[in-house]
Amino acid sequence: MWFMKKMKSKYEQFREKIKIVLYGTNTILGRMFDLVLLGLILLSVLLIMMETVQGINQKYHTQLIICEWIITVFFTIEYILRIISIQKPVKYIFSFYGIIDLLAVLPMYLSIFFPGASILSIVRALRFFRLFKILHIPQISHQSIQLREAIDASKEKILVFIYFVLISTIIIGSIMYLVEGKESGFTSIPMSIYWTIVTLTTVGYGDISPQTPLGQFIAALVMILGYGIIAVPTGIVTAEFAKSSLKNSNSVSGKKTCRKCNSQIHFDNAKYCYECGTELPNN
Amino acid sequence: MWFMKKMKSKYEQFREKIKIVLYGTNTILGRMFDLVLLGLILLSVLLIMMETVQGINQKYHTQLIICEWIITVFFTIEYILRIISIQKPVKYIFSFYGIIDLLAVLPMYLSIFFPGASILSIVRALRFFRLFKILHIPQISHQSIQLREAIDASKEKILVFIYFVLISTIIIGSIMYLVEGKESGFTSIPMSIYWTIVTLTTVGYGDISPQTPLGQFIAALVMILGYGIIAVPTGIVTAEFAKSSLKNSNSVSGKKTCRKCNSQIHFDNAKYCYECGTELPNN
Amino acid sequence: MWFMKKMKSKYEQFREKIKIVLYGTNTILGRMFDLVLLGLILLSVLLIMMETVQGINQKYHTQLIICEWIITVFFTIEYILRIISIQKPVKYIFSFYGIIDLLAVLPMYLSIFFPGASILSIVRALRFFRLFKILHIPQISHQSIQLREAIDASKEKILVFIYFVLISTIIIGSIMYLVEGKESGFTSIPMSIYWTIVTLTTVGYGDISPQTPLGQFIAALVMILGYGIIAVPTGIVTAEFAKSSLKNSNSVSGKKTCRKCNSQIHFDNAKYCYECGTELPNN
Amino acid sequence: MWFMKKMKSKYEQFREKIKIVLYGTNTILGRMFDLVLLGLILLSVLLIMMETVQGINQKYHTQLIICEWIITVFFTIEYILRIISIQKPVKYIFSFYGIIDLLAVLPMYLSIFFPGASILSIVRALRFFRLFKILHIPQISHQSIQLREAIDASKEKILVFIYFVLISTIIIGSIMYLVEGKESGFTSIPMSIYWTIVTLTTVGYGDISPQTPLGQFIAALVMILGYGIIAVPTGIVTAEFAKSSLKNSNSVSGKKTCRKCNSQIHFDNAKYCYECGTELPNN
Repeated sequence: MWFMKKMKSKYEQFREKIKIVLYGTNTILGRMFDLVLLGLILLSVLLIMMETVQGINQKYHTQLIICEWIITVFFTIEYILRIISIQKPVKYIFSFYGIIDLLAVLPMYLSIFFPGASILSIVRALRFFRLFKILHIPQISHQSIQLREAIDASKEKILVFIYFVLISTIIIGSIMYLVEGKESGFTSIPMSIYWTIVTLTTVGYGDISPQTPLGQFIAALVMILGYGIIAVPTGIVTAEFAKSSLKNSNSVSGKKTCRKCNSQIHFDNAKYCYECGTELPNN
Repeated sequence: MWFMKKMKSKYEQFREKIKIVLYGTNTILGRMFDLVLLGLILLSVLLIMMETVQGINQKYHTQLIICEWIITVFFTIEYILRIISIQKPVKYIFSFYGIIDLLAVLPMYLSIFFPGASILSIVRALRFFRLFKILHIPQISHQSIQLREAIDASKEKILVFIYFVLISTIIIGSIMYLVEGKESGFTSIPMSIYWTIVTLTTVGYGDISPQTPLGQFIAALVMILGYGIIAVPTGIVTAEFAKSSLKNSNSVSGKKTCRKCNSQIHFDNAKYCYECGTELPNN
Repeated sequence: MWFMKKMKSKYEQFREKIKIVLYGTNTILGRMFDLVLLGLILLSVLLIMMETVQGINQKYHTQLIICEWIITVFFTIEYILRIISIQKPVKYIFSFYGIIDLLAVLPMYLSIFFPGASILSIVRALRFFRLFKILHIPQISHQSIQLREAIDASKEKILVFIYFVLISTIIIGSIMYLVEGKESGFTSIPMSIYWTIVTLTTVGYGDISPQTPLGQFIAALVMILGYGIIAVPTGIVTAEFAKSSLKNSNSVSGKKTCRKCNSQIHFDNAKYCYECGTELPNN
Repeated sequence: MWFMKKMKSKYEQFREKIKIVLYGTNTILGRMFDLVLLGLILLSVLLIMMETVQGINQKYHTQLIICEWIITVFFTIEYILRIISIQKPVKYIFSFYGIIDLLAVLPMYLSIFFPGASILSIVRALRFFRLFKILHIPQISHQSIQLREAIDASKEKILVFIYFVLISTIIIGSIMYLVEGKESGFTSIPMSIYWTIVTLTTVGYGDISPQTPLGQFIAALVMILGYGIIAVPTGIVTAEFAKSSLKNSNSVSGKKTCRKCNSQIHFDNAKYCYECGTELPNN
């Protein structure tokens, strides 16, 4: 009857409104909600961290738990509303953000049955990636795109490089294992490989370090090797960046010439000579 | 009366002279004063450092304090004279250098009421930045400008990058916290995040280091990850430097705009708009 | 007689088949075999690692040994078949892969007489390099070629650089030895040089670290030096990468030479010598 | 009389011969001598190192001393002969190599009066720089020149950069001193600055490391800062390398055009079109 219809339309209006609030980023309401959300994510991540700190946890355990529950409930409602309000709920549920939104609330409920599972709520940190959807500053998003581009372009080279590095770590690790032996911390080949990686990456904890003169000599060689090696990934990425940043700048390949003054260095998209103003050939 | 007037003019002369000494860098007197000032800054910074070294402090406490007071008084007088001699004292007071000049003297006076506050005088170190105003070597200043340019240009990208890094540190840190547990130093998630940053940046103190095989395996992965990651900021900055050094060839500073089509990316030496062929303004 | 002949031909067929399996990479059978091989290499390397881990070795010693023997026998048969099936066996035997294939099986047999030699089987890790022959993805192989090119091109510069670094490590090491003396770990000049390398490469174990103020001051200088120094190899490699990536535009590989004027730097697509205008050979 | 004259001429001949041996690098004799010299330098440096190693020194003290004396005497004779044989002895004596040659022999003689001074003979390591004069491989020397060029070009920028870094180390160090206090190793501001440098350069010994949560938080910030900072010198040097390596490559600025086929990308020194072989305009 008309009553039902009215209900329906009301519900539709309600859905529409929610959708604007949840997904809209160019409306004031939507933007505000997003910022509130961001704040809550930050807060909840901090709370979970606090929970793992002995001193604080003992003092404020109950308060922490309560706050976390409140936030979790809020997130749960948000999650449900997101599903209701969107056209293609299934698509959202199995999207990157959809899965994260789910993982952000699940652990808390699991913690009812398995205490301690609440720490897993830390995955909420991944929700920070929303930030880029939230603040629609083209500048930033452009930057991040450029970043991704350069990294993608250099990914393959770096993988090949890391593959070589890993093989050498196995060899070097084994040599150090044979040279140093157990007493100086090189208790096994995996351990020696761990040491090799710690050294090649110049992290150098010092929890394991060669004691025998020969071991230290080899270690020195490894370091100098790593010295040259660390240059490679940097070189790869940098070259990509240089490329992409050159691409973005208005390119001048010198393919255009002015018939009148024979000047050649024009922008590729130039229509007129910047020297004498005569029209340029369209090639 | 004429007497007052005389006084006034005398004072004016005095002010003028001081101004030349304090702010002038191309007069011999001004330059000399600046060098003396620089020397005093260096001296006072060293004195404050010495004061914190047990051995030295016990022996020469009084001498140190006296020297510091002398320098402080000198700086105070300088500060006052700067305010008097300049036209727009307010502007100076709230300028970067003005604030530093104030902060450079305050702590010492505070130390009368709160002993130990004298250490805060270390902020005087910031006065070293005057160096660039002092030695007016265009070379150097040009260099520093190029430096700032490149860093500014790459700032945004680096921020985006660091934002991603921070999120991953939270995730990695939490994983390590769960894997390693308390006994091997990963006492809390914040602590684990601290460890992650120490590792990703290849600092590697070794005050905390993974003990379990699984933990060490993940650590190794993190290091190799950091290996590739450290390349990114370098790549960003380098690309910028390369760009700026290439710009020297045929620069496009966007200083020119076409009256007709409002296109702005012209060569600085362009005479005509490459878009519509109309003449460009000569600025 | 005909019988012998038949045998011969049968053997020939058999040889042919094996050759396809062992060396063929574009046949399904060949590809499959290669993947199986790769899996076995990985397995055996892991086994040898496990063998060096106390806990695991004590529990599963016999099983480990048995598995290793099985794999070794498999590799031995493979090695023999490779020699039989190929046209130029000698060439293979003394090739890089041939030697590795031999070294991969020898240690196990040696371990019969010298227990513990089995660990040397770790050299099998070098067989991983086959991977690139196996997966004939032009992409990857192209990447690795570019990598090698850039590294080769920058090798010389890096060697010169390392030569200088080594001389400075000797000098710095000696200074630190004189400054710090025995009690703070700088027991000898070689040890100090080891410390210098550890510091210059920013590995920084902390097993040895300066204790005296002067020593720490020098160390700080060394670090800042190393700061600038670490930039050099990176700079070298990166420049090479940038070059190689720029070469893609209009390449000059110097493959062409002018018959008349012997000039060699031509574009690869050049038809005429830019020096004297005579036609260039099309290779 | 004729006798004296004969002597004189003989002496002249002798001087000439020696000069060829000592300074000549393109004669077989000269080359051989240089290599012998290089070998002796290496040997003597190793000997001095050995002398500082307890175990070895106790066993072979006398032998070491004897060998060192022999080499020293040889170097002394060489030094004297160099002075005699050269035209401008004074110029040589006060040249870089001249001073090093002297410093290489002095310590040993000093050790007669001050035992232990013999260790200073390590400065002989500096004689290794002769290597470049010895092996006249243009390749290598070219490389080293390119290296020096790039480093010189970027020196100023790096100095400016280091100046800024040093100021920040003072500020950061002081903050850490105030935050951490004595018990966690930050005993004084100089010590804290030492720690800051150790951290910013990603060396990270771990001999001093923050203990308080706040201290660790600041430390993390410093590391991430250092993360971005380490990029700067690399960026500077790399840009220089890229520049210099582009300079060396045959430049194509597109200033030339073929009248016939309108192709523009020619070498700047091209005389004929590589496309159609017609002469190019000389601009």
